[in-house]
Amino acid sequence: MAIDRIRSDHYRIPLPVVLSDSTHKEITHFELIATRIGTTDGAEGLGYTYTVGYGGGSVHSLLTRDLPDLLLGAEETRIEALWKEMWWRLHWVGRGGSAAFAMAAVDVALWDLMGKRAGLPLWRLLGGADPTVPVYAGGIDLFFTLDALLEQTSGNLDAGFEAIKMKVGRKKLSEDVERVAAMRDYLGDGFALMADANMGWDRPRAIAAARALAPYDLVWLEEPLEPEDVAGYAEVARIGTPVAAGENFHNLQEFSQLIAAGGVHYVEPDLACLGGITAWMKAARMAEAAHLPVTSHGVHDLHVHLMAAVPNASYLERHGFGLERFMENPLLIEKGRAVAPERPGHGVTLNFDALEEYRVS
Amino acid sequence: MAIDRIRSDHYRIPLPVVLSDSTHKEITHFELIATRIGTTDGAEGLGYTYTVGYGGGSVHSLLTRDLPDLLLGAEETRIEALWKEMWWRLHWVGRGGSAAFAMAAVDVALWDLMGKRAGLPLWRLLGGADPTVPVYAGGIDLFFTLDALLEQTSGNLDAGFEAIKMKVGRKKLSEDVERVAAMRDYLGDGFALMADANMGWDRPRAIAAARALAPYDLVWLEEPLEPEDVAGYAEVARIGTPVAAGENFHNLQEFSQLIAAGGVHYVEPDLACLGGITAWMKAARMAEAAHLPVTSHGVHDLHVHLMAAVPNASYLERHGFGLERFMENPLLIEKGRAVAPERPGHGVTLNFDALEEYRVS
Ligand SMILES: [Mg+2]
Ligand SMILES: [Mg+2]
Repeated sequence: MAIDRIRSDHYRIPLPVVLSDSTHKEITHFELIATRIGTTDGAEGLGYTYTVGYGGGSVHSLLTRDLPDLLLGAEETRIEALWKEMWWRLHWVGRGGSAAFAMAAVDVALWDLMGKRAGLPLWRLLGGADPTVPVYAGGIDLFFTLDALLEQTSGNLDAGFEAIKMKVGRKKLSEDVERVAAMRDYLGDGFALMADANMGWDRPRAIAAARALAPYDLVWLEEPLEPEDVAGYAEVARIGTPVAAGENFHNLQEFSQLIAAGGVHYVEPDLACLGGITAWMKAARMAEAAHLPVTSHGVHDLHVHLMAAVPNASYLERHGFGLERFMENPLLIEKGRAVAPERPGHGVTLNFDALEEYRVS
Repeated sequence: MAIDRIRSDHYRIPLPVVLSDSTHKEITHFELIATRIGTTDGAEGLGYTYTVGYGGGSVHSLLTRDLPDLLLGAEETRIEALWKEMWWRLHWVGRGGSAAFAMAAVDVALWDLMGKRAGLPLWRLLGGADPTVPVYAGGIDLFFTLDALLEQTSGNLDAGFEAIKMKVGRKKLSEDVERVAAMRDYLGDGFALMADANMGWDRPRAIAAARALAPYDLVWLEEPLEPEDVAGYAEVARIGTPVAAGENFHNLQEFSQLIAAGGVHYVEPDLACLGGITAWMKAARMAEAAHLPVTSHGVHDLHVHLMAAVPNASYLERHGFGLERFMENPLLIEKGRAVAPERPGHGVTLNFDALEEYRVS
């Protein structure tokens, strides 16, 4: 069998609610880049990646201009070989950046094909640790009023979530403390609460924030600093609250470096920006070898398989971009846990007809 | 004054000779992405970046889809502010990769405008150390026969070069040793000869190569390893031949890390892939602070200004993609040194009419 077709589509989709975090401020749209890869026996795999509103065209350009001739004619089960070929072809403009997103779309489609060929869901094919995974609701709510934040939280509790993440990184640290205190008060002691600063602080402010938030028993404090500040992460991680990081890492070296420095407790790769499932699994193994749990960021319908596959899964993020509007089978959540589906491959089917009105190219 | 127009063009240009190195194997084309930025007083700045044949479309997409509204209306002399804004807008798909190339094209155009506004060539505006810079001929000749390599070398000697770089990283180390020995023999003792492995080795092979090439008195051994292998660079750097690295670095942290590890002697940023002149100057300052010389990679017509501006310049690379075909004033070389021009800004004028036949978009 060999790859005989590849098509990639780029959509820009308005969000139902304007989201907000300290990096992006207001987020009104996200971009979806979907790649379908077909093989000579008529099978088709689906891959997709996303952006926070910018850069989707650059990912689509790599997928349509620079990668098809490399993939066409290749055996679709040679994923490691194709991954390496893509890495080196895009190396000069790559080693991360848009190239990692383009490779992710291809890699996910290839793993989907592999699962379909094997007749196995990815969570089994990749190891089969536990099909149910603790899940949290990832709020993107930095600029919500406190009332809106608590109202969103009430909805999440009604939906059965037993863990919730909120944003921090407002202009004044006192505002963050007030909001975290209100959430802790609302949720009660022992409820799993995380806070995500989205790189909104420099090192002195991150240290002050980690100290000020220490009394509120956070499961983790996420991205207190820019991902390049390895020494800063190590400093914040020593303060007491565990640190999560990794969603902005685009290659594996960034994980090995931060883990070696002791700068992260919850390793948080995002397959959509890291080069796909192939790379995500390696990051998860690096975490395991360092005795650290792995968590996920974004694209929960894909990550649920990977988290269910590995033995060191902590929480899956249920992400807020609302892609489930375009899915036949959105993520199933039962008793505070996400359930990895038994459908072969990743089991996601996108409604391309409904996406059509958002097409960019 | 404010920015009131920006246009970006993408060209794919065949090389006069098929070039070769251990990363790209055969190189038949390069891509040029040129950005022109105009201001309300009618001034225009020119920026450009390049690829080794792939990914130019992704750079062009960022320049045309994602950056114009950020730039239009802004004061063109607020370069640091605009650089930071671009960095954060493209952060999710960036921190390097195509984003660094797109930012480079914009940044160079802004510095060109700054120089024109000040009536100064960039090499003066940025510090004015010495307008003449030692230059070497950068061969891209890994798969040339030994005869062709020596013939190219003879041409470079005739053209007045007093320093030459050749490629290494062939299948067998003995072939590399034979070629380096032949070049040393041909050039004579004391002639400045560099060798560039373009990341063609893993760590054990790089160590073996550094040992085997030690007798040939290379000025430097370039990129013995993939840029991510910081510990490996430190190991190779201790063997004896100085190490050059940096052309594949897309953000400043990569320089700080390799310098701190003692993995590099000649710091080699390329403004075209690092985010432009703003970032290159910071890398050069990091080298200076670490008592290391800086060298350049590619786009010599731009780098000659930066090398002439700083006090720690070693050799400028005269690069082989032949962009001078489209330039009014190609790089001037006198007595083995490149001469930074006195024209305001960078002083490069591209012949866009001649480029037209190579347009992609
Ligand atoms: Mg986050
Ligand atoms: Mg080189």
